[in-house]
Amino acid sequence: MRVAVVGAGLAGLTAARELQRAGVEVVVVEARDRVGGRVEGGELEGRPVELGGTWIGEGHSRMDALVAELGLETFRTWNDEGKVLIQLGNRRALVDGAKGAVPRLNPVALADLAQGLARFARLARTVDPARPWAHPKAELLDGQTFETWVRRTLRTPSGRAYFRVATEAVLAADTSDVSLLHMLCYAVSNADLETLLAVDRGAQQDRVVGGSVLVAERMAADLDVRLSTPVEVVTQDDAGVRLTTRAGETITADRVVVAVPPTLAGRLRYDPLLPAWRDQLTQKLPAGTVAKTFAAYPTPFWRDQGLNGQVASDTGPVKVTFDVSPPDGEIGILLGFVEGGEARRWQRLPEADRRRAVIDAFVTYLGPRAAHPTAYVEKDWSAEEFSRGCYGAHFAPGVWTAFGEALRPPIGRIHWAGAEYAVEWTGYMEGAVRSGAATAREILDQT
Amino acid sequence: MRVAVVGAGLAGLTAARELQRAGVEVVVVEARDRVGGRVEGGELEGRPVELGGTWIGEGHSRMDALVAELGLETFRTWNDEGKVLIQLGNRRALVDGAKGAVPRLNPVALADLAQGLARFARLARTVDPARPWAHPKAELLDGQTFETWVRRTLRTPSGRAYFRVATEAVLAADTSDVSLLHMLCYAVSNADLETLLAVDRGAQQDRVVGGSVLVAERMAADLDVRLSTPVEVVTQDDAGVRLTTRAGETITADRVVVAVPPTLAGRLRYDPLLPAWRDQLTQKLPAGTVAKTFAAYPTPFWRDQGLNGQVASDTGPVKVTFDVSPPDGEIGILLGFVEGGEARRWQRLPEADRRRAVIDAFVTYLGPRAAHPTAYVEKDWSAEEFSRGCYGAHFAPGVWTAFGEALRPPIGRIHWAGAEYAVEWTGYMEGAVRSGAATAREILDQT
Repeated sequence: MRVAVVGAGLAGLTAARELQRAGVEVVVVEARDRVGGRVEGGELEGRPVELGGTWIGEGHSRMDALVAELGLETFRTWNDEGKVLIQLGNRRALVDGAKGAVPRLNPVALADLAQGLARFARLARTVDPARPWAHPKAELLDGQTFETWVRRTLRTPSGRAYFRVATEAVLAADTSDVSLLHMLCYAVSNADLETLLAVDRGAQQDRVVGGSVLVAERMAADLDVRLSTPVEVVTQDDAGVRLTTRAGETITADRVVVAVPPTLAGRLRYDPLLPAWRDQLTQKLPAGTVAKTFAAYPTPFWRDQGLNGQVASDTGPVKVTFDVSPPDGEIGILLGFVEGGEARRWQRLPEADRRRAVIDAFVTYLGPRAAHPTAYVEKDWSAEEFSRGCYGAHFAPGVWTAFGEALRPPIGRIHWAGAEYAVEWTGYMEGAVRSGAATAREILDQT
Repeated sequence: MRVAVVGAGLAGLTAARELQRAGVEVVVVEARDRVGGRVEGGELEGRPVELGGTWIGEGHSRMDALVAELGLETFRTWNDEGKVLIQLGNRRALVDGAKGAVPRLNPVALADLAQGLARFARLARTVDPARPWAHPKAELLDGQTFETWVRRTLRTPSGRAYFRVATEAVLAADTSDVSLLHMLCYAVSNADLETLLAVDRGAQQDRVVGGSVLVAERMAADLDVRLSTPVEVVTQDDAGVRLTTRAGETITADRVVVAVPPTLAGRLRYDPLLPAWRDQLTQKLPAGTVAKTFAAYPTPFWRDQGLNGQVASDTGPVKVTFDVSPPDGEIGILLGFVEGGEARRWQRLPEADRRRAVIDAFVTYLGPRAAHPTAYVEKDWSAEEFSRGCYGAHFAPGVWTAFGEALRPPIGRIHWAGAEYAVEWTGYMEGAVRSGAATAREILDQT
């Protein structure tokens, strides 16, 4: 048997690897001139940074195993010393990073936030991430935006701001963009909201020494990967599948794994056409909007100021930051996320204004020493032809209930893989790897 | 000057015609082997029916003028004699079609519905359809689904059902699929909700003798239209635009009008890439789901039963019907809409089951004489490669506020046209024509 994999991100590479190990002949066809997809390596001052997917979280057991198997090592995200800065409105608070990022607020806001978090957690535990549409109240939960739930459940501006910032940080989308059911499903797929937001024992716990792109590059080393080969047409018939590339080349196989984000999968031409409901599903899975910005400094100076470089703010353009300095801490690198509506305003600015807006935010949070970075890099994922958004697809109201069942099943010889398709740890590198493995099993089981 | 128009629907043809009249050299490039786009002619028993866009409503002055100019005639949709059948739950009511389709319900439900309609109308009048994002409460109105508003505003099951059926009928989408702001904007663009739902003095008032497709065909007669020529790439630079077709042919022009629905416009390849926010807009404008079904009978027998063939029901798969018999009434043709979630379930059935489900619904509504049509035709617009849904794009929560400003402005030499872009009468043939004319003016004004 021969399988073609479209997309050399972690999902596609994992599917290819597992299939090849089972004796299947595999070819991976990648549009970009590099592997990794939404995982990409960059550098500031000669030190690696992750322009895309970065973290291996607590419980991301597949990634842990893969990293070990590939001879790589991880290190802890800087978190232990110094405080997280929480800025909601004009209120600034420092909280102990090791204890999670629930800010110290006035007692009314704190009680409000506590009841909101408890209600969210309780509701999330009732959702099965494999079948959110099967929830007894699925239509009610999917018929409203997460914003509606936030407004109804939280009474204080600070309480509401917390959930809105958390949504931006977690999904690169606004609370209006997704249904309550999607937010619940996403949280439970990733253990819970606290895990999603946390560093220690959370989704941002570990990083790969040398950069996460090494995982993709080492996986690709043993595979037949054809770079710079955008696929345009996927043809299937009784005999097999045939991919036609932009250059007009033809690649044949028995089955194909389409391992690109849904909004790109929907732009491929399928012959015969995808069924209506599957095409309309991809129409309804837009990618989030996010840019990552990096500034390098001679030292991680914030550590000397009792800060750990983590900020959560309700004021844009940068609302969330992390210390992504190299493990030796010899220089300081600060990562700022520009997300959702903030990203859409920011990305229309000229380059110099974008940089200024980011650095100004860093100064606001970390003081005047942030004003003069030695290097600055930004990566707007929605501007990338072969991503057109990140981190992943978000599900607007009605989509899980109306189209959820259409998400994972193959269409004839066409199988799907990617972080969006993962039941567990969806949206993360871990989810991508699990989805790729699940799709490989799906193919092996069918043949 | 030379302009290429992609898409020979009413918007594209109107733009082409207006430009040609102003002395511009125009070529229209159409993927299908016919003109009309979402307007298409069909026939049952040798009599024409509209498989797509059908009606010219009260106030659709551009269409009225166009029909007259093209030597065509209109006739009134059958409405005058007989009652509209309203079926909500197990409750059936007959209402006078000439007085609009507000059902006779029990007093509690009627009061509930009346206050809901009044509140909706009051709110809709505050929205400017040219700039819904500029509403002082835009974020609040766009942050919730229309479903949330319906649940909060309406207290009775019948009152809620009315708005849900109305949404399906008007948008081919469910109340969960769109934001409150979108529904308000759509209503005010089309005068008001009552106009959208009405026949006499409403959006379903008139039909074209011989079928609406004649409008497209007669417009195309004087234009250079290249059929069966799907465009795949739109390249622009300082010198002009270049379209590359699926067959590899090249068409050059000074400007291009992309007059295809947003979800298809997003699948074209642009070189240089569209800006991120414009690409993400098209990711967020999925088409509705609708199939039109037609059954022919020896006579319009329902007219003898005191019914006018119009049904509004909250039970699928067919929730809305119309009498679309030819003007002479010599045979009866009933049109049944299958929309939104109903369409997505129905379209997965085998052909025989689809037909049976539709005819069963007709029997439920109109009695046993509906059981044996002499002909049956169905058209699932979401299954069409060059529509992938109808009637048009719907705006989920957050989209108008985050992306609305990006909808209409050209990107360099690329201009947009279509029923989705119309300020007035959006979603209708009238809106398509107005949008096409506006885009032609936009080009003429710039050059």
